[in-house]
Amino acid sequence: MPQTPASAPIETRLPTGVRDFLPGKAARLEYLQDSLRQVFARWGFRPVIPASLEDLAVLELGLGSDLREKTFRFDDRQSGRLVAFPPDITPQVARIAATRMHDLPLPYRLCYSGRVLRHAEQRLGKEREIWQAGVELIGLESPEADAEMIAMAVEGLQAVGAGEFTIDIGQCAFLRGILDDLPLPPMAAAELRAAIATKDATGLQRVLDAHPVSARQRDDVLALPRLFGGRAALDKAAAVVGNDTSKRALDNLHRVLDVLKVYGVDEFITIDLGELRGFDYHTGLIFQGFLTGFGRAVCAGGRYDGLTARYGFPAPATGFAFNLCDLLFALDRDLGGPDEVGTDILLFCPARDKAPAQRLAAALREQGYSVARDIIARDRQASFDYARRMQFRCLLVMNATNDGLTLQHTADGRELPVNLEAVLNGEFRL
Amino acid sequence: MPQTPASAPIETRLPTGVRDFLPGKAARLEYLQDSLRQVFARWGFRPVIPASLEDLAVLELGLGSDLREKTFRFDDRQSGRLVAFPPDITPQVARIAATRMHDLPLPYRLCYSGRVLRHAEQRLGKEREIWQAGVELIGLESPEADAEMIAMAVEGLQAVGAGEFTIDIGQCAFLRGILDDLPLPPMAAAELRAAIATKDATGLQRVLDAHPVSARQRDDVLALPRLFGGRAALDKAAAVVGNDTSKRALDNLHRVLDVLKVYGVDEFITIDLGELRGFDYHTGLIFQGFLTGFGRAVCAGGRYDGLTARYGFPAPATGFAFNLCDLLFALDRDLGGPDEVGTDILLFCPARDKAPAQRLAAALREQGYSVARDIIARDRQASFDYARRMQFRCLLVMNATNDGLTLQHTADGRELPVNLEAVLNGEFRL
Repeated sequence: MPQTPASAPIETRLPTGVRDFLPGKAARLEYLQDSLRQVFARWGFRPVIPASLEDLAVLELGLGSDLREKTFRFDDRQSGRLVAFPPDITPQVARIAATRMHDLPLPYRLCYSGRVLRHAEQRLGKEREIWQAGVELIGLESPEADAEMIAMAVEGLQAVGAGEFTIDIGQCAFLRGILDDLPLPPMAAAELRAAIATKDATGLQRVLDAHPVSARQRDDVLALPRLFGGRAALDKAAAVVGNDTSKRALDNLHRVLDVLKVYGVDEFITIDLGELRGFDYHTGLIFQGFLTGFGRAVCAGGRYDGLTARYGFPAPATGFAFNLCDLLFALDRDLGGPDEVGTDILLFCPARDKAPAQRLAAALREQGYSVARDIIARDRQASFDYARRMQFRCLLVMNATNDGLTLQHTADGRELPVNLEAVLNGEFRL
Repeated sequence: MPQTPASAPIETRLPTGVRDFLPGKAARLEYLQDSLRQVFARWGFRPVIPASLEDLAVLELGLGSDLREKTFRFDDRQSGRLVAFPPDITPQVARIAATRMHDLPLPYRLCYSGRVLRHAEQRLGKEREIWQAGVELIGLESPEADAEMIAMAVEGLQAVGAGEFTIDIGQCAFLRGILDDLPLPPMAAAELRAAIATKDATGLQRVLDAHPVSARQRDDVLALPRLFGGRAALDKAAAVVGNDTSKRALDNLHRVLDVLKVYGVDEFITIDLGELRGFDYHTGLIFQGFLTGFGRAVCAGGRYDGLTARYGFPAPATGFAFNLCDLLFALDRDLGGPDEVGTDILLFCPARDKAPAQRLAAALREQGYSVARDIIARDRQASFDYARRMQFRCLLVMNATNDGLTLQHTADGRELPVNLEAVLNGEFRL
């Protein structure tokens, strides 16, 4: 057992980019997880819990180059193989669906909640731990499946008490139709993508001028930065864009929006056809959810029809995930810090015989109250101060003869007598 | 994007000792976590969520040599420091209490639920991932605090539906009193410990014969293998053991048992004073919970008064944790495999216009039912087969004109007509 001399400074830092959640925030995080899990269950999604370690080679089948670079990996001293901590749960669910569920009929509705690790730029103070809660719908190519993801994202945000928010929808295939149509070398294509992502019209112009691009192709590309807003953006796009892939993508979006109207969630939707975000594995509709006034997306997802095939099981699929820490941060900013979830009752008992207090605590717990007995030896005022500091709702004081009770609220210190028999009989309401 | 030719065999194994949970088992694991969390909350314990990575040197302050050897560690390429994945959550909670909560008044009642990693003997097929749910009660040295842990363990086992079980109690200080009293060199002391752990009377005799041990000391040691059973074991021990440390330990056990009697859980207790189990950090009462007929402990814990001091904050403490996979395994063996938690309703709609079915699904979800619409194109029988395979409770069939419903139970195939209006008005009961 290591001894630490009292005089030595004790090093207790965490690695950068990871964090502890203390009781208030931890309870909030659990509340978000529970609320979202209930939404997922209502839509018929059932939980899977993927392993915490993966064989690196297996995991990389399902990772794009962006996430491969961010993967925590190390030698497994027991097997001599390279193993990894997943930087994303979706490839794990794809692996599970492909290799452990493929004898079941499609579709699979699966959900998860967990923590992934990614290397991140330390100087930006970025988190390396990311808490996710998400769903995967595997085996459906219907626009209704995409709409289901978006409707669930909206319900999830409503379930956790988000105020104003929007879901921004893009379509990878729409953009791909335009970009694949262009006679550009790889470098120029990358430049073009960057200009689209930043809505940089001058940059777009420059790339197009340097290459033999037809007038129609040029119109397609130059229109992109303007193709956002309400459903009208789809009509604007249809009027401009000439290639078939992009036209089919617009048709797909129309059909998704029709379903969202039936679900009554179309009011939350905005469209951005210049949106390029998405992991390498996205193939169709993609979306992100934003709380008004908070810059980072709190949820994101989309269609990824090629992912399960990498594990030997070709199937269309769509899914999305909440980033729970961003969601927590955005919500608590909105609400100005919600009340911490505390314990109902601290029970104080000055008598020598503690058995009546212990029995009373057991009876209250039986009734569903959360109760701690103040076991430490201190006076009533000190016990009340403790209850207040530690976010108990009230101090319940047994009198010195163990036959009477006083309830004192920590919020305002007000006291009222409580009948012991009534509490034991379940007639007590806090 | 990596392409996997269809002809190549795709490698999809997991590293040894880790596992995926598919929907049925995952739901069971979540049920255990939720049930235990509710018990912890009722006793006034509040959640903390420690970071997933720790600085190795910091983590090792709180680890005994047994767990140090089992710790997953690697170079953090971003900081150049050695980091580790925690093999146990208790040292993390001790660190958090010591460094992030020490300005709050004691005691702290903290709980957690999570997954740790430990290197394990692969040839024994041992798990390297361990799912734990536990509590730490920091700042109390009272026997009532130890009793609180045991009462919570009993309530936890009852909450998850355990049938017959026992809590085996030992006392590190009792044993230490006896062992410290002996004039043995380290090697012989280790041999003696091994003999005690295996209740090997011949081995005990051999070690004692080889060293200058007094008659009283010899009696103490030889009595150990017999000092188990009901409360009478304490009286037997008191009659035999001579040293003061062990006597105080017995007094401590008596006081704990008195409180457990008040809580009405003393019937579950057995005593084993020869019990040597416990991490290096245990200092007083230790205990393990066993389901009858299942050899491995499903929960374990005890007093560890020295741990927080390693992080610069000396405080008495006690705690325990459930091993959720062992608990799951032991329970499901008892119950012969419980029903899987499935989704309530699969909605089947043959009409071209899906909007009424989508609205109906939304209405049922609003009422608290879990509902998936069978979006894929297939006939009713195929949809029913899917519902049965995927553990839906029933198939709800819309007629071809979208104005009538039939409910078909997957368990037995029986059908009954359902009034659409009644469902929309919330008058439907499944």
